[in-house]
Amino acid sequence: MADYRVPRDDMQFLLQDVFQVEQDWARFPALEDVDMDMATAIIDEAAKFTETVIAPHARAADEEGVRFDNGSVTTPEKYKENFQQLAAGGWVGVTANPEFGGMGLPKVVSAQYEEMLCAADISFSLYPGLTAGAIIAIDAHGSDELKSLYLPRMTAGEWTGTMCLTEPHAGTDLGIIRSKAEPQEDGSCAITGTKIFITGGEHDLTENIVHLVLAKLPDAPAGSKGISLFLVPKFLPDAQGNVGERNSLECGSIEHKMGIHASATCVMNFDGAKGWLVGEPHQGLPAMFTMMNYERLGVGIQGLGAAARSYQNALEYAQDRLQGRGEKATREMDKEADPLIVHGDIRRMLLTMKAFVEGGRAFSSYVGQQLDIAKYSDDANEKKRADALVALLTPIAKAFITDTGYETTVIGQQVFGGHGYVREWGQEQLVRDCRIAQIYEGTNGIQALDLLGRKVAGSRGELLKPLLADIQALLAEPVPELATEYAQLEQAVARVSEVTEQVLGQVMQDENVINSVAVEYLHLLGYVIYGYLWLRMAKTAQPLLAERPYLSSKVKTAKFFMARLLPRVESLAAAVEDGSQSLYLHELSEF
Amino acid sequence: MADYRVPRDDMQFLLQDVFQVEQDWARFPALEDVDMDMATAIIDEAAKFTETVIAPHARAADEEGVRFDNGSVTTPEKYKENFQQLAAGGWVGVTANPEFGGMGLPKVVSAQYEEMLCAADISFSLYPGLTAGAIIAIDAHGSDELKSLYLPRMTAGEWTGTMCLTEPHAGTDLGIIRSKAEPQEDGSCAITGTKIFITGGEHDLTENIVHLVLAKLPDAPAGSKGISLFLVPKFLPDAQGNVGERNSLECGSIEHKMGIHASATCVMNFDGAKGWLVGEPHQGLPAMFTMMNYERLGVGIQGLGAAARSYQNALEYAQDRLQGRGEKATREMDKEADPLIVHGDIRRMLLTMKAFVEGGRAFSSYVGQQLDIAKYSDDANEKKRADALVALLTPIAKAFITDTGYETTVIGQQVFGGHGYVREWGQEQLVRDCRIAQIYEGTNGIQALDLLGRKVAGSRGELLKPLLADIQALLAEPVPELATEYAQLEQAVARVSEVTEQVLGQVMQDENVINSVAVEYLHLLGYVIYGYLWLRMAKTAQPLLAERPYLSSKVKTAKFFMARLLPRVESLAAAVEDGSQSLYLHELSEF
Repeated sequence: MADYRVPRDDMQFLLQDVFQVEQDWARFPALEDVDMDMATAIIDEAAKFTETVIAPHARAADEEGVRFDNGSVTTPEKYKENFQQLAAGGWVGVTANPEFGGMGLPKVVSAQYEEMLCAADISFSLYPGLTAGAIIAIDAHGSDELKSLYLPRMTAGEWTGTMCLTEPHAGTDLGIIRSKAEPQEDGSCAITGTKIFITGGEHDLTENIVHLVLAKLPDAPAGSKGISLFLVPKFLPDAQGNVGERNSLECGSIEHKMGIHASATCVMNFDGAKGWLVGEPHQGLPAMFTMMNYERLGVGIQGLGAAARSYQNALEYAQDRLQGRGEKATREMDKEADPLIVHGDIRRMLLTMKAFVEGGRAFSSYVGQQLDIAKYSDDANEKKRADALVALLTPIAKAFITDTGYETTVIGQQVFGGHGYVREWGQEQLVRDCRIAQIYEGTNGIQALDLLGRKVAGSRGELLKPLLADIQALLAEPVPELATEYAQLEQAVARVSEVTEQVLGQVMQDENVINSVAVEYLHLLGYVIYGYLWLRMAKTAQPLLAERPYLSSKVKTAKFFMARLLPRVESLAAAVEDGSQSLYLHELSEF
Repeated sequence: MADYRVPRDDMQFLLQDVFQVEQDWARFPALEDVDMDMATAIIDEAAKFTETVIAPHARAADEEGVRFDNGSVTTPEKYKENFQQLAAGGWVGVTANPEFGGMGLPKVVSAQYEEMLCAADISFSLYPGLTAGAIIAIDAHGSDELKSLYLPRMTAGEWTGTMCLTEPHAGTDLGIIRSKAEPQEDGSCAITGTKIFITGGEHDLTENIVHLVLAKLPDAPAGSKGISLFLVPKFLPDAQGNVGERNSLECGSIEHKMGIHASATCVMNFDGAKGWLVGEPHQGLPAMFTMMNYERLGVGIQGLGAAARSYQNALEYAQDRLQGRGEKATREMDKEADPLIVHGDIRRMLLTMKAFVEGGRAFSSYVGQQLDIAKYSDDANEKKRADALVALLTPIAKAFITDTGYETTVIGQQVFGGHGYVREWGQEQLVRDCRIAQIYEGTNGIQALDLLGRKVAGSRGELLKPLLADIQALLAEPVPELATEYAQLEQAVARVSEVTEQVLGQVMQDENVINSVAVEYLHLLGYVIYGYLWLRMAKTAQPLLAERPYLSSKVKTAKFFMARLLPRVESLAAAVEDGSQSLYLHELSEF
């Protein structure tokens, strides 16, 4: 695999010029020490770390994988050392609460670091990634005792965290989980049950692992309203946080998977393990969603990282590999063939990748900025608006960045021809590693249901308004050089409004309509959002071209996106318009 | 992985009712012994063989893979025994010349068998598949001596065949190969060079392997017009076909790949190996294309087989797995949840799979029928028309069936949620195995270039006419129950004609336009062809519904395809209309 190079210029352009996040930070007391220079320094440091320490081992780690032996899991050779270096750099707690040792940086900066770590090695990124999510859930819902005992260790990367939701018979449908929590006299609970697909459930990177486990208390109401959240450590710490007795839980086996071979996906057996309630009884699902929402953007960023890496590799290959002849005027007749990049179809593939990658980076930054406003703003209206945007955009960010990210990695493999199918080049690993991001943390189908059902229909369309207002604000200030593209976006937005109204009109009569069109609806909105972000980037770049000529690429890629990818809106809208009609013609015996 | 069950009813429906192939066979002297009863018997026999002998070992074979040791390749445990059984059943020579021991069956029947073999195990299917292609090339271009010496052994499955085209620096661009052929006094040539990505280049299944190798004679003109084709056996046979001395060629290593782990993908080193010219000097590429065209439909069928298997598995899982609740009227409240299949998004996924699988099966049968007409008809006009259809449809069959097949296997993995990512369920293997079919035998981008450049633009649109005539013939006989769907197809066909004219108008002014829109154009045509085939199936089913009620599924799936998948035509047409415009804005430094 080619060396990884962090796209620092693009990240800088997004933070400084497109989203002008420094203006936000200046207004927020908690971020008064953060400025663009500091963000740049963090990005540079993260780039150095991911480029030179993490990325070089991803290929070998895929081959080595994780090994399971009698309850223990061994990670690839370099992981332990690299994890220690990551922890020592403070990278586990980039956004975490400074009270417990976190850096307290804005999410919009962390999003850049997360992309780098995922581009370098998705498997590796999951150990600190899940830990960061667990820290947030404990910080938001845990008791002061739990926080002061666990958060400093976790933030320092001395202990890692997991989320234990899925059971063999209960994946998407958490209401039917069977794990039980029996209250004990000392205030703890005895947790019993089997959890599957637990990322980092067992490993050899740290001295302790802190499991966040969903289970049902004896008096729990049926269904998803009877689920509680528990903190269950692998080793029980004493009051000073020294690791003590082993808890009654064990890794029963690990999964053999398509990809993320170096991430341990564990079956975890809890056998009366000691755990402590996090948050209120029966409120486990909302508490877990604090973590899930954070993780969902993080999973979107996994798709982005894989896509970004694949694009870099494909571009380099297309520039180096000589094959066939381009148009007459550009032929290099002293060589036996021209580089792949002269061919129209190769350019189509590269530009599709580029449009999805840079669009996805803009999207994750946009959501990151809104998360920061929601968290740090003192202005109630601004905060409310940002909360609404985050609620709407999170499922789209998770699903659309991973769906387009997967498409990107598959294209990146195609650019390599047969070499893309061979392991040594690394392009197929990115496909395999990226694929899981469409599945876990709520499948992309579930994200779509959340978007259209809970968010859009659930608010009778209200939640769409801040997004549409942002888009209208851009459209209200036309740029002559981008007149065609403005018109294209305007048309696409009109189409979204049209089909949204139609779906909202059907909801009362048709129980099935939401889940019948949700995925296409999410994609429809995704393309419009990328269209908006591409125009916003192009518009931002336009006056800067003289000063920074490389930004001309932004304007050109925006034109490409509008001409070749935004038209997908048409076919998606047509599918949404069909409603549930053609999906419920078949009797069960007719499939 | 669930047991494989061959969809015999659907195959029977296609052959007997939709394409009425018996009427063809009755007219063709060479096929006078073939009838529907015989075809049904063959399909039943092939079904039994693939279901019970081949399919059960595919999962284990993926885990075992092929092993390389000092020039030798060991295939998975059961492969040798299974290959012998396949050979003994005459399956290598299903369509081969009866003069050399082949069954001489129509391709439209063989296509069904090939689908089964690929659905059962793509890796395994490649050993007989390449052999069947090599048999065709030798039969068409070899000398009588070569034919009588090699074809009986190969047809009997005693020896296998390969095609050796790619070199490290030359994949798509075969004009720049460096392998050399030095004429020898005995009439043979000494072949020297390195070939890569050679499927079945070395293995332990048979006593000999017959390589068809592209190389350049000393007086060869530069480029693709200077390539000759040679037959180069691993062991040199005596005049009676007894295996003798080892030839100077060796497998240098095998590739470690994303999938088809049990297929040996070899680096082959030829070091003055003895070979014999097949066909005329410098006419190797056209000769190889005899094989390639056959293989290209075969590769399309690989995509179909993987997709068909994935659909079966996903359907079974969606019927069994209980998760969440469907609409009120259908809830099974005695169970803790309803089966997945009640959910709209699951139905969308299953129907998309079903529409692509049965559409692909119809397409491969349609092309198979035309191949048979081209090969066996005595009527020059009919033959010419079939030849034209085959030329047009072959690249579409290769690329569109594999692209939609890959989409299908990815969806089939998604239906399984997390279990789809775990190896033991087999869904991820189908994704990995299917992926190569979009790459080899000419990438799908190259197929698109062949379609739009050589076939459509090269004939100034003439080659499209027989296809459009077939579609118009269907549209000319409307069916009241399918009025909406007829209108949808009509509109899509009009769109194809529109953009075809536009592209043909640009060709003279713009060298880049063909390769800039070829892939979207191929997909556009692919959706229209599937639309045509779905309507043709629905129309055929309509009057048979009383007699065979299960055919109602055909009508309903046709409606689904038209409502939800055919609209993709719109976005594809818009992309084609953009021409090369947005692909050539970027300077090389701006990527």
